[in-house]
Amino acid sequence: MSGMKRATEKNLMVFSGRAHPGLATEVAEQLGSGLVPTSAYDFANGEIYVRFEESVRGSDAFVIQSHTSPINEWIMEQLIMVDALKRASAKRITVVLPFYGYARQDKKHRGREPISARLMADLFKTAGANRLICVDLHTSQIQGFFDGPVDHLMALPILSDYVRDKYGDQQLAVVSPDAGRIKVAEQWSARLNNAPLAFIHKTRDIDRPNETVANRVVGEVKGRVCILVDDMIDTGGTITKAADALIAEGAAGVVIAATHAILSGPAVDRLKNCQASEVIVTNTLPIADDRRFDKLTELSIAPLISRAIREVFEDGSVTSLFDGHA
Amino acid sequence: MSGMKRATEKNLMVFSGRAHPGLATEVAEQLGSGLVPTSAYDFANGEIYVRFEESVRGSDAFVIQSHTSPINEWIMEQLIMVDALKRASAKRITVVLPFYGYARQDKKHRGREPISARLMADLFKTAGANRLICVDLHTSQIQGFFDGPVDHLMALPILSDYVRDKYGDQQLAVVSPDAGRIKVAEQWSARLNNAPLAFIHKTRDIDRPNETVANRVVGEVKGRVCILVDDMIDTGGTITKAADALIAEGAAGVVIAATHAILSGPAVDRLKNCQASEVIVTNTLPIADDRRFDKLTELSIAPLISRAIREVFEDGSVTSLFDGHA
Amino acid sequence: MSGMKRATEKNLMVFSGRAHPGLATEVAEQLGSGLVPTSAYDFANGEIYVRFEESVRGSDAFVIQSHTSPINEWIMEQLIMVDALKRASAKRITVVLPFYGYARQDKKHRGREPISARLMADLFKTAGANRLICVDLHTSQIQGFFDGPVDHLMALPILSDYVRDKYGDQQLAVVSPDAGRIKVAEQWSARLNNAPLAFIHKTRDIDRPNETVANRVVGEVKGRVCILVDDMIDTGGTITKAADALIAEGAAGVVIAATHAILSGPAVDRLKNCQASEVIVTNTLPIADDRRFDKLTELSIAPLISRAIREVFEDGSVTSLFDGHA
Amino acid sequence: MSGMKRATEKNLMVFSGRAHPGLATEVAEQLGSGLVPTSAYDFANGEIYVRFEESVRGSDAFVIQSHTSPINEWIMEQLIMVDALKRASAKRITVVLPFYGYARQDKKHRGREPISARLMADLFKTAGANRLICVDLHTSQIQGFFDGPVDHLMALPILSDYVRDKYGDQQLAVVSPDAGRIKVAEQWSARLNNAPLAFIHKTRDIDRPNETVANRVVGEVKGRVCILVDDMIDTGGTITKAADALIAEGAAGVVIAATHAILSGPAVDRLKNCQASEVIVTNTLPIADDRRFDKLTELSIAPLISRAIREVFEDGSVTSLFDGHA
Amino acid sequence: MSGMKRATEKNLMVFSGRAHPGLATEVAEQLGSGLVPTSAYDFANGEIYVRFEESVRGSDAFVIQSHTSPINEWIMEQLIMVDALKRASAKRITVVLPFYGYARQDKKHRGREPISARLMADLFKTAGANRLICVDLHTSQIQGFFDGPVDHLMALPILSDYVRDKYGDQQLAVVSPDAGRIKVAEQWSARLNNAPLAFIHKTRDIDRPNETVANRVVGEVKGRVCILVDDMIDTGGTITKAADALIAEGAAGVVIAATHAILSGPAVDRLKNCQASEVIVTNTLPIADDRRFDKLTELSIAPLISRAIREVFEDGSVTSLFDGHA
Amino acid sequence: MSGMKRATEKNLMVFSGRAHPGLATEVAEQLGSGLVPTSAYDFANGEIYVRFEESVRGSDAFVIQSHTSPINEWIMEQLIMVDALKRASAKRITVVLPFYGYARQDKKHRGREPISARLMADLFKTAGANRLICVDLHTSQIQGFFDGPVDHLMALPILSDYVRDKYGDQQLAVVSPDAGRIKVAEQWSARLNNAPLAFIHKTRDIDRPNETVANRVVGEVKGRVCILVDDMIDTGGTITKAADALIAEGAAGVVIAATHAILSGPAVDRLKNCQASEVIVTNTLPIADDRRFDKLTELSIAPLISRAIREVFEDGSVTSLFDGHA
Repeated sequence: MSGMKRATEKNLMVFSGRAHPGLATEVAEQLGSGLVPTSAYDFANGEIYVRFEESVRGSDAFVIQSHTSPINEWIMEQLIMVDALKRASAKRITVVLPFYGYARQDKKHRGREPISARLMADLFKTAGANRLICVDLHTSQIQGFFDGPVDHLMALPILSDYVRDKYGDQQLAVVSPDAGRIKVAEQWSARLNNAPLAFIHKTRDIDRPNETVANRVVGEVKGRVCILVDDMIDTGGTITKAADALIAEGAAGVVIAATHAILSGPAVDRLKNCQASEVIVTNTLPIADDRRFDKLTELSIAPLISRAIREVFEDGSVTSLFDGHA
Repeated sequence: MSGMKRATEKNLMVFSGRAHPGLATEVAEQLGSGLVPTSAYDFANGEIYVRFEESVRGSDAFVIQSHTSPINEWIMEQLIMVDALKRASAKRITVVLPFYGYARQDKKHRGREPISARLMADLFKTAGANRLICVDLHTSQIQGFFDGPVDHLMALPILSDYVRDKYGDQQLAVVSPDAGRIKVAEQWSARLNNAPLAFIHKTRDIDRPNETVANRVVGEVKGRVCILVDDMIDTGGTITKAADALIAEGAAGVVIAATHAILSGPAVDRLKNCQASEVIVTNTLPIADDRRFDKLTELSIAPLISRAIREVFEDGSVTSLFDGHA
Repeated sequence: MSGMKRATEKNLMVFSGRAHPGLATEVAEQLGSGLVPTSAYDFANGEIYVRFEESVRGSDAFVIQSHTSPINEWIMEQLIMVDALKRASAKRITVVLPFYGYARQDKKHRGREPISARLMADLFKTAGANRLICVDLHTSQIQGFFDGPVDHLMALPILSDYVRDKYGDQQLAVVSPDAGRIKVAEQWSARLNNAPLAFIHKTRDIDRPNETVANRVVGEVKGRVCILVDDMIDTGGTITKAADALIAEGAAGVVIAATHAILSGPAVDRLKNCQASEVIVTNTLPIADDRRFDKLTELSIAPLISRAIREVFEDGSVTSLFDGHA
Repeated sequence: MSGMKRATEKNLMVFSGRAHPGLATEVAEQLGSGLVPTSAYDFANGEIYVRFEESVRGSDAFVIQSHTSPINEWIMEQLIMVDALKRASAKRITVVLPFYGYARQDKKHRGREPISARLMADLFKTAGANRLICVDLHTSQIQGFFDGPVDHLMALPILSDYVRDKYGDQQLAVVSPDAGRIKVAEQWSARLNNAPLAFIHKTRDIDRPNETVANRVVGEVKGRVCILVDDMIDTGGTITKAADALIAEGAAGVVIAATHAILSGPAVDRLKNCQASEVIVTNTLPIADDRRFDKLTELSIAPLISRAIREVFEDGSVTSLFDGHA
Repeated sequence: MSGMKRATEKNLMVFSGRAHPGLATEVAEQLGSGLVPTSAYDFANGEIYVRFEESVRGSDAFVIQSHTSPINEWIMEQLIMVDALKRASAKRITVVLPFYGYARQDKKHRGREPISARLMADLFKTAGANRLICVDLHTSQIQGFFDGPVDHLMALPILSDYVRDKYGDQQLAVVSPDAGRIKVAEQWSARLNNAPLAFIHKTRDIDRPNETVANRVVGEVKGRVCILVDDMIDTGGTITKAADALIAEGAAGVVIAATHAILSGPAVDRLKNCQASEVIVTNTLPIADDRRFDKLTELSIAPLISRAIREVFEDGSVTSLFDGHA
Repeated sequence: MSGMKRATEKNLMVFSGRAHPGLATEVAEQLGSGLVPTSAYDFANGEIYVRFEESVRGSDAFVIQSHTSPINEWIMEQLIMVDALKRASAKRITVVLPFYGYARQDKKHRGREPISARLMADLFKTAGANRLICVDLHTSQIQGFFDGPVDHLMALPILSDYVRDKYGDQQLAVVSPDAGRIKVAEQWSARLNNAPLAFIHKTRDIDRPNETVANRVVGEVKGRVCILVDDMIDTGGTITKAADALIAEGAAGVVIAATHAILSGPAVDRLKNCQASEVIVTNTLPIADDRRFDKLTELSIAPLISRAIREVFEDGSVTSLFDGHA
């Protein structure tokens, strides 16, 4: 008989792009694996250079990058890292996306638009990604954009546990700032003792369809502390107007909770100035020190991601992390 | 110079599976193209045989099949038709899906489920489909499941024009039977003079999460004629319970409107017996004569599909059919 | 050095669709692995739902489904199971097809036909299948339709051992019911002491080419017990006419042997009434109790399939199961 | 409106590799298109160089190559031509294979063999072929190996018309030299007035399975002129032994007919010396002058190929060339 | 006969990203097609939005984007434009890259690096690009990175005609600033009357391999006007040191010529201060007004690109633009 | 819990085509794995047959073939071996190419040429190759032609160590025979104490561009022993003319060093007769005994290949073999 036999070993290696090294470091520490030392810098004309300083041959590679600003730069860096891993003979490549860029462009709202969220999935596949791990996708259907396994993690338990601990003894309502996301509010309601639901209905003038005429509150909120929930806070316009409309409608208080703290442009000022008393987010995206403010509470997503990576690496069950949801 | 030149011609050919020949015939008549004569039958063990009776070489082929029951049979027949067209040198193959089967399995609701809606898109691609034409997908993200152009047609103008003509002079409310589909209700509201919105919130017992405890109406419906809207009526359970809850809440009347009339199992009895006064649907799916009932109104989707096919064939604009939406 | 090492383990998991659970159970018992508990049912409109009740992450998955009637339903179910396995991170997916549906549509007999047997191979590939295990394909070329490894198992040893034990002391002839399958008869002859060959030549009237004029026996059968062999019995028309023609030609007796017992429509009556004394088949397809009859002998294919799965799982040799043929 | 419109023209261009320029020239003359001037030569180390001397941009390209000896050289040349056409922006590339190399390796006869016929189909696809035109494939299933349209042409009408004209007034039998190809003989029989069928059964010694013990004639041939038919004549061993066995069995004469005249090694001597009175072939493969012999009749396949190319180019029907078969 | 026929028309449409609208406008004017009106802007978090304001169905689309800084932003924008065109049913999509980003990462210089130039080709293919048009790729092998036609345009005639007109009456030498690019210098020499060649050899200290010890001039330059040629000027370090080394070696003068004027960081200062008397570039990349300087000469590449697009659209010959080179 | 667990083992198996069995045997001996017994022969018409004599299921397969003459035969044999391995369930297939055929056709030198080097990469991918191991590719960009990991080995250390040992005490120059390959000469220079560089500039008559007018030496070579380096020696024309030109220019001696000894046609005579004193090559290609000559030195590449295979098999680092280069 010809040949030469060896027992097979697998090797977990965690890689981080430059977008949010703090989170990746936290994840790698919880795993006990360390981060693989990586050279990454921009050439003078902005082209990105990446090289790993250790052999990655045969590794089970997890590449963490949060798609924060400058977002196209960090997406491209992650694609290039995946290409380098593929060509360096990594055995399996999992792209970890605490925040999935372009998730909101998940359909054609009008003709001749791209579906950039599908494009992103295809670009990662092309570069060499075998699997994805994501947190709170803008719509769950994005799982189906990738041709391969997607582990979809949910920050809801982390956020809702915090809310229940702090506000559980009050009369609550769960409010969606937008007609399109009430399903998420329904999940919150189920975790908060079936608190009643409400949502904000933006009506438009028939002659000027691009302008919102009014923010009507649909549902009963009077005298209740409203938990205003969304997947992300970008410029904060919708959610802060919703907070103020709720108070105007007689709400006893407003607490904002969202997974992804993009906090673009005027978001910080709007949040500071709105009538919500607390803004609860996770660290799926980095928040610069000068963007932090008093009523902001940041919960760490790292334990969730590190547990998911461990389950994936050890062929355990990610589903089990959510009591049957994933 | 070698070679031999010819002017290029394109040839529109319309094909129909056996699921819903009435609709396909109507479409082909409106186009003036006729249906391509096709042999299709089942072998003794249920395998499907298909053959086209005319040359299809170089054609711009549109293959219409509605995914009605027995649904797997008709999906497979359409896949086989596409394979036969590909191998017979059709130039371009457009799969026309008045109702897209498995659209509701568009994400993993729990771990270890399939995403069958994505699988369908991939199966059609593999068989040889270049493009899709669909009507009112369960979620718009399904457009992104197919790797190629998808023309997504909307029955909303047909349905809402009918409602406005008949009920426009009354006090209306637009109601979603489910927290997850209020976005569609919002589009209806915009077309019905900003009629107020409401939705039904199903609460569950925390100890028995699979049972609905109550159907709470969220929003103001008292004294209004409620237009209860959804994309499809399957067994009719949710929507008829919603109709009854609305009347109980003081609604002046209930009209049900939905694009896809699946009408499975108990649906017809439930609709007959519920408190809605009219049920408006389109013929994206065939309705057997013995499934029709008095308060059912069926509007034809054929004009919309035939106009879309014409625009696609003539390189016109499908977007223009919807005033800038597609 | 960064990273975290573990020894690699592989885990054989066997899955069964709803088409022929008896065979799958027998296979799983012989392997000692058990069947993975699976929820599978039809929604009201016929769409199939599948979910696995245990984690399948990292598994070496074998998905058994026999393509019996309703055949398109069971093919679709198997495709959906494969999709769910792929998305749940199974490591390798082997589709086990005791009977491969649409195998007879393995070429274009006429223009504008599909090649459905190739289409099936592509559909399974697209859903996520890495490998196939099949039993007695209608033509061996179908192995080449799949872009990956195919283990092609042969029931011939099982069937011919039985025949040799029971009829080996008589004067035998091996007969093919059709000019296209004499090669198989030749393999039988080699295993039955070089018994002489014959076949049935169906002649047609030149003016009515779709009608068979006569079933001529080509070859010498007088006074011999004829083993009439084929890969499958569908409606049984060809093979029972052949049996009767052999007796008419002076055969001493007729025994029918075939791997796949489809037994559609009139098959059971025809077999009962024809002049063959015994009909030997395997259980690659389920036979309902009310379709069984006295002279039917059913041999189990499970030992062959379970041995093949074990060889595949343990990186042994499937070829060795057939003394150098596979 | 932006843009710039032009009527579209298509341009048929015919290309020939170096394997069988005579046939390609004949085809191009019948089409009236000429052959595109092409530089093709071998570098010193045997690498092939190809370049087209005219612009091929936008062309409907047909690349003719017969897989004669040195067969790997000519296959590679054709692959390289296809690559050059793809990169030079040909619009559609049809590979024309009068003889398809490696067609006999269309399945795994034993474990650990390749399926080279499938591999060839994939190689051409990869190089850029959109379609195939083939003549008398060794097995029709090979059509299904290519992922795209295959026009499968049959030399049978050409060969059988010749035989009927010359021998139609005699008592004929149609004989297959091998159990595996009686289906083809059956087609001949249908075209020759339902002439009776026979075949040669090679039996083997059970202890020495690789040696043929005897060539038994199965079927009635006494006093008849036997038309001994096959798809190809390679070394001629099987067919000449069959011819002699037929005469020994009392046949009145033997005429050999086959589409592909490979005529390797001892074939010419064997054919000259065997008891067949005429050997009828086509020119799908080139026959060197010193390989021709008196009783050889060569019929041209060029009219069939040129008519097929014309139908493909003009979006006509290839099926119609065969009265409904293709 | 069923169906409906139309003559086929093709429609050239030119699209521009936001990177270098001046060049695209110039190209569209020379073609007479205009640019397709396009909405493109950044969302607050940096995600790019693109939509075309006219129907693009069936168009022959050319998408021009120069990969200037911020380079990852513009590459992503172009990918998104291609995705939108694909989904809006453009018939053929040609990506026009006056400057191809990441072209210098065309191989692994060391282990565990990416090959980003190949990755870019794959990303464009995945997004939906059918073809590329490029100008002076860093290495010609990049043509082979794309799986489809690449029209590779050369600025050499434009640049060398200018140089010959202005300096042709002097004693010239052609100099490569680097050992790796002398082949290009050789092409220049052939166009400048076989002017002698030279190059700069950077030697390194064996103990400190990352530091250049000396710039040795290899070849004879004394008393000659040196045309120092390269494909691009990025930070200008290498080329300005080369210019000074040539003067030190006794050159009568130095003229720098390069296709792509990246002019990153210190490039402008270095070029101003070096001993070259003129710096000749094209406008494949935009040059901000405050980056222009006296001795800079900018030649337009638009005529070359517009002629190439016209040839591609009209199925002419791009090769003919270069007298047999392409 | 269902399932059946086993520890995973990997099995290195080395396969050799018929092109250069000596090298493969040497490699397998150094690995201690032996070569897998393989049947390979040509059928009468030149089609290749391959079969492995042992089970290869689950193996980590390395298939060694040197692309020597008849080159298309050996490439095809290797493709067929890969196909057979894929279909026999090898787990991973690495194609080992000591000499990569068609590497010189790595770009379109003129319009309407193929890029055969890319085509080869795609053919191997299609056949089933997962990875490549190559030695001294003609241009490093070819790494990017393959969609997967490529381990690019360099013979430079082997060759330059030999040269340094033997000639290190003399005054050396490193000379490239061609302007396009000076980069390689630069690497040699770095390993030979920064020896000065030179190259041969072939000038052409403007009126007869295909004829070389003169071979000018650019750089200083007088009194030095010139190490004339290239990647391959094919017909030897360029390199032997270069050798003679160097002597004519006053060089003290010439030593030729190249990795790949193709030695086509007149190469041996030219090398014997030229003024070089020694010709140093490796055995990446077989050299027939009657092609060997006195001043030829052949160094074995087997240790390099066997060490690379071992690193790949054991998930070690190939980069480490070259001190950080690969």
